[in-house]
Amino acid sequence: MYAPLPLDPTAPPVTINLFSDTQTRPSRAMREAMLDAEVGDEQLGLDPTVNALCARVAALLGKEAAMFLPSGAMCNSVAILTHCRPGDEIIAHESAHIIEAEGGAPWALAGARVHGLHGARGFFTPDDLRASLRAPSRYSAPQTLLEVEQTSNLGGGAIWPLDVLQQLAGIAHEAGMATHMDGARLMNAVVASGIAAADYAAPFDTAWIDFTKGLGAPLGAVLAGSAEVIDRAWRWKQRLGGALRQAGICAAACLYALDHNVDRLAEDHANARRLAAGLAGIAGLQVETPETNLVYADVAASGRSPNDWAASLRAQGIMVSVMGRTRLRLCTHLDVTAGMIETTIAAFTAIN
Amino acid sequence: MYAPLPLDPTAPPVTINLFSDTQTRPSRAMREAMLDAEVGDEQLGLDPTVNALCARVAALLGKEAAMFLPSGAMCNSVAILTHCRPGDEIIAHESAHIIEAEGGAPWALAGARVHGLHGARGFFTPDDLRASLRAPSRYSAPQTLLEVEQTSNLGGGAIWPLDVLQQLAGIAHEAGMATHMDGARLMNAVVASGIAAADYAAPFDTAWIDFTKGLGAPLGAVLAGSAEVIDRAWRWKQRLGGALRQAGICAAACLYALDHNVDRLAEDHANARRLAAGLAGIAGLQVETPETNLVYADVAASGRSPNDWAASLRAQGIMVSVMGRTRLRLCTHLDVTAGMIETTIAAFTAIN
Amino acid sequence: MYAPLPLDPTAPPVTINLFSDTQTRPSRAMREAMLDAEVGDEQLGLDPTVNALCARVAALLGKEAAMFLPSGAMCNSVAILTHCRPGDEIIAHESAHIIEAEGGAPWALAGARVHGLHGARGFFTPDDLRASLRAPSRYSAPQTLLEVEQTSNLGGGAIWPLDVLQQLAGIAHEAGMATHMDGARLMNAVVASGIAAADYAAPFDTAWIDFTKGLGAPLGAVLAGSAEVIDRAWRWKQRLGGALRQAGICAAACLYALDHNVDRLAEDHANARRLAAGLAGIAGLQVETPETNLVYADVAASGRSPNDWAASLRAQGIMVSVMGRTRLRLCTHLDVTAGMIETTIAAFTAIN
Amino acid sequence: MYAPLPLDPTAPPVTINLFSDTQTRPSRAMREAMLDAEVGDEQLGLDPTVNALCARVAALLGKEAAMFLPSGAMCNSVAILTHCRPGDEIIAHESAHIIEAEGGAPWALAGARVHGLHGARGFFTPDDLRASLRAPSRYSAPQTLLEVEQTSNLGGGAIWPLDVLQQLAGIAHEAGMATHMDGARLMNAVVASGIAAADYAAPFDTAWIDFTKGLGAPLGAVLAGSAEVIDRAWRWKQRLGGALRQAGICAAACLYALDHNVDRLAEDHANARRLAAGLAGIAGLQVETPETNLVYADVAASGRSPNDWAASLRAQGIMVSVMGRTRLRLCTHLDVTAGMIETTIAAFTAIN
Repeated sequence: MYAPLPLDPTAPPVTINLFSDTQTRPSRAMREAMLDAEVGDEQLGLDPTVNALCARVAALLGKEAAMFLPSGAMCNSVAILTHCRPGDEIIAHESAHIIEAEGGAPWALAGARVHGLHGARGFFTPDDLRASLRAPSRYSAPQTLLEVEQTSNLGGGAIWPLDVLQQLAGIAHEAGMATHMDGARLMNAVVASGIAAADYAAPFDTAWIDFTKGLGAPLGAVLAGSAEVIDRAWRWKQRLGGALRQAGICAAACLYALDHNVDRLAEDHANARRLAAGLAGIAGLQVETPETNLVYADVAASGRSPNDWAASLRAQGIMVSVMGRTRLRLCTHLDVTAGMIETTIAAFTAIN
Repeated sequence: MYAPLPLDPTAPPVTINLFSDTQTRPSRAMREAMLDAEVGDEQLGLDPTVNALCARVAALLGKEAAMFLPSGAMCNSVAILTHCRPGDEIIAHESAHIIEAEGGAPWALAGARVHGLHGARGFFTPDDLRASLRAPSRYSAPQTLLEVEQTSNLGGGAIWPLDVLQQLAGIAHEAGMATHMDGARLMNAVVASGIAAADYAAPFDTAWIDFTKGLGAPLGAVLAGSAEVIDRAWRWKQRLGGALRQAGICAAACLYALDHNVDRLAEDHANARRLAAGLAGIAGLQVETPETNLVYADVAASGRSPNDWAASLRAQGIMVSVMGRTRLRLCTHLDVTAGMIETTIAAFTAIN
Repeated sequence: MYAPLPLDPTAPPVTINLFSDTQTRPSRAMREAMLDAEVGDEQLGLDPTVNALCARVAALLGKEAAMFLPSGAMCNSVAILTHCRPGDEIIAHESAHIIEAEGGAPWALAGARVHGLHGARGFFTPDDLRASLRAPSRYSAPQTLLEVEQTSNLGGGAIWPLDVLQQLAGIAHEAGMATHMDGARLMNAVVASGIAAADYAAPFDTAWIDFTKGLGAPLGAVLAGSAEVIDRAWRWKQRLGGALRQAGICAAACLYALDHNVDRLAEDHANARRLAAGLAGIAGLQVETPETNLVYADVAASGRSPNDWAASLRAQGIMVSVMGRTRLRLCTHLDVTAGMIETTIAAFTAIN
Repeated sequence: MYAPLPLDPTAPPVTINLFSDTQTRPSRAMREAMLDAEVGDEQLGLDPTVNALCARVAALLGKEAAMFLPSGAMCNSVAILTHCRPGDEIIAHESAHIIEAEGGAPWALAGARVHGLHGARGFFTPDDLRASLRAPSRYSAPQTLLEVEQTSNLGGGAIWPLDVLQQLAGIAHEAGMATHMDGARLMNAVVASGIAAADYAAPFDTAWIDFTKGLGAPLGAVLAGSAEVIDRAWRWKQRLGGALRQAGICAAACLYALDHNVDRLAEDHANARRLAAGLAGIAGLQVETPETNLVYADVAASGRSPNDWAASLRAQGIMVSVMGRTRLRLCTHLDVTAGMIETTIAAFTAIN
């Protein structure tokens, strides 16, 4: 379902980057924070800036402990390897990043299948979850982990309602399962909903946030959980090659991001709404109403493929993503201004 | 979806066993064939009876080579381990035995996820398969194997039409995927359809038949494919502990089964049809029309759970399976007579 | 180190088979026991003969519970998968069957490395074991299983002394490790030493005996342990394809073997001693003194390769094994008579 | 064998850090290089600084292609996953980092056992390698990778002679194996020997250098090989969570290190020699002659444990490593001055 646009090295420079919030660049001020960071040997617990970041994220997510990792994908894998054994089944939405976009890591590394539940906007219901649970038997794979992605990327950046998350986790825990939140864009949900990150994370045994998306840091994600879980997770951090050295230099950028780049996600959301409104009037585009910073438009009715659309925009310096067979994704973030949104709407209109 | 009835050791003896054709018992004549079997060291290729059986099944399935294994489940695992690498994705029906009933072996042992497609009667269409294929990308799991179960157990014993199989395998091969047929009840499909086993197996790189179901042997299954594939598969036969010693003693029973127990599957199918017809009139039962030896009845409308139904029948010495939340499965086989079918219909009628 | 002789299909018939006790053939009387075996669905716990065999082996090995498996190799793999997690380290002798002769199954299936300790006769000492233990650390693999092979095949069929086993297991348990005995030829040790199988098995959390070697059954091995361990092991029995159907027909042969073929192992040991004595006088052969039914002769000083020796013997209808670069192995068993031993000695003498 | 000293948070500040060259801190000038780095989305190939670093390391190692990874441990795992399949055997020295210090990653992630060869100074010979090769057989694990660590850490920082590496790789390639060099301290070997990195790397299909050791960068390592191998390796980089975003900010520090911190490794080597000479006279210490920047001293004859020695030094602000049961390791690097060496010698002398 997820197929990044092949990059064309001969294309003109990208002037408006709506491809992904992963492409945000560290600002000068953020880099200056890195210049002065105190550092140490991260994998021995001796990097004060990493330690400060972990303490801060643990507090933000309401957990006892946290660990720094080079990527969000590694947060998912470390958590899965910590919660699951080979042969286990993980329950997630069928569009989950761990199914669609991590190269098969959960089964390649942990021997765990991800079973995908259906549902609009990247959601499934407590009833869906209940219906997917089986009585334990030697014939069937143990169901040991519930995974949820907040916000749902392929679900259009939709925000899982807190009470649904609480119900889902309750069902999972009652069934003896662990729970994990992929919080790649959790802070978008927090800013858009006004609900605290710790509240969203509370029903989950592990949760992580990514600093390389809307928060604008160059590298890094932090996984949080109980002290016991994080201690066990360290073994997998080490095995996956995620135990680092003077990582504090990167953690400094993450701390800067927490100080300066969280509240401003509201601008990205406003830009996304404006973009969706602007595209909504264009014939042939079916635009989903954005809840956060992702705008999805289905181009099936336009008679042109999403690759066509993307190529036409790219020729004007505007980069967007193709998601699946009929959808475009446009992602707002701190390198996208309100003016760029208007330019983009105009470009779409002109193409059509 | 698959939950075998918990066995009650205090229940009366089973007099009519519709639980599964896996419960058939070797006949006296079959045992006598075992008495005289020539044997040798199977894992060194020195067992003449195993060699004869493999040659015979290879011919039956139209393949170059074959290997004897202690179980059908091991045939599936050996094939998957031979075709796939960790991180791969297998495409099958969501009700496939390899998803539902092998304890998670494909991902526990091979690190391969099975992606389940939807569709009635255990089938999916060429269009469904095409829609599930992704452009290769470092972000998504390689799709390397198509798996089909002939007949579809949870699909009601339905027979995949030959031309559909040919189309599916064509699509898979064109996409660079291997193809595998779980032929646990392939011989039922052969007898019911009049289509040769070799024709059903032709589109598949590997295929196997089971001797412990309707064929009535105590133990054993044979996996067939090209000489090259079977040679590679030997490494996994060895690793899984499926390399045996004087296995010819069991292969003799399988040879007996090929000689005596294939054509008579027609009786099982007739019994299944009669059983379905007899149950069809009972209020609260929605009976699927059987194509082979499996009769599924949905009891949702009866106001009683399938466990209730099964327990009431069990109290009269009749054992059936519960499949999922609302279905009963009744399986005919060589230990089930036409008279037992009438008794069973009467018992159902009386319960209702 | 272990390289079975390539089989030559053009060679004359084997009249004296010293290749391996795995090549013993089921006798007429054993087969007749199979003819009358009561059977059922083994994987549902419904096969009375399998159940009787498991109860008997559990008692023999002094354990609470046992499970039937098609091969000894599967006993090892099931035990390792039950005791270990991916990334673990198993400690064994460097010549252990699980390192040398199971195709890499422990790491292929369980993700566990086997660390091989050195020492003559296939043994290592309590001090060796202590020296191999590391303080736990995130940098090193968890050491979770001690494995011992009784008797040691590549150690010349040598019998681990009971007090050494007790000390080793004590050290392992104190370090939080589980212990497992590969008892492929445990009954040879029992008969040769007069020490009860239960005594040898007592220090081990799991232990198994093989029925296809000197005991002469065609197929089968039984793994024993606590009820809790065997219950967990069932999941892996199922996943590896070792859950069977009417396996009682094979279990009947194993029960026969326990009744008739244990005490007679003493004859095999006497034959082995006679064979070793007879070969000891031949120039160029360095013969190890056998403790059980395996006779190893190093041919390095003969100026001929072991393959040469084996081929010359094979031309006279005598089959032996080549083990490593300079050793021959000759294995006595129930199909080898005292007369064959004399013929073999004569053939060796003539070659030289 | 590898057990890092437990860290004591109540100890006085470390003023002389001989614990490891992994603890070097990025200099101000290096950080300023980071401040201005051009960056992009690394995992899409869009980070110009990462691309420049990869091109430079590929050239340095004489390979077609290279990839940036967050750690050297991940370079080893990515290479092993690319070269091996589950069940394979890797041949390395028994003291190899991949056996001793990566938490079991090769078998946890790749299902590959590392077989450890013996030999002084972390070396084995071409004859040792030849003797460890087996004829291929279904019974034994496929031997698919030769791994060498340049310099050998636990071998005392010893430099593998180029002709030995060439012979070893020749034997391996002839046997159909791939070859991999763990170049964590390859640049130390290059500077000490005057042999080019490309010459050392030439016999190896993959090789990597680490930037966080003597080169003084905070984070990062680069794996090089043929374009084909690196392309396949990308799948595992992605799966392990090593696909990054604006990693150029770290790559800039690595480029700085190549420009400024390579030649100066000679100072570390001189310091190591001086340190070894100074310690050599102390009773109870058996000091190995250093070839590069690692100084090992066996304290067995001192009557005190290495932990005792380390603790006494630590109390004076000098941190060293304990390696195994009797050895101390002292590591020189860019944060260790000639003056610190004299202070350390004095401290040792005083303790004794």
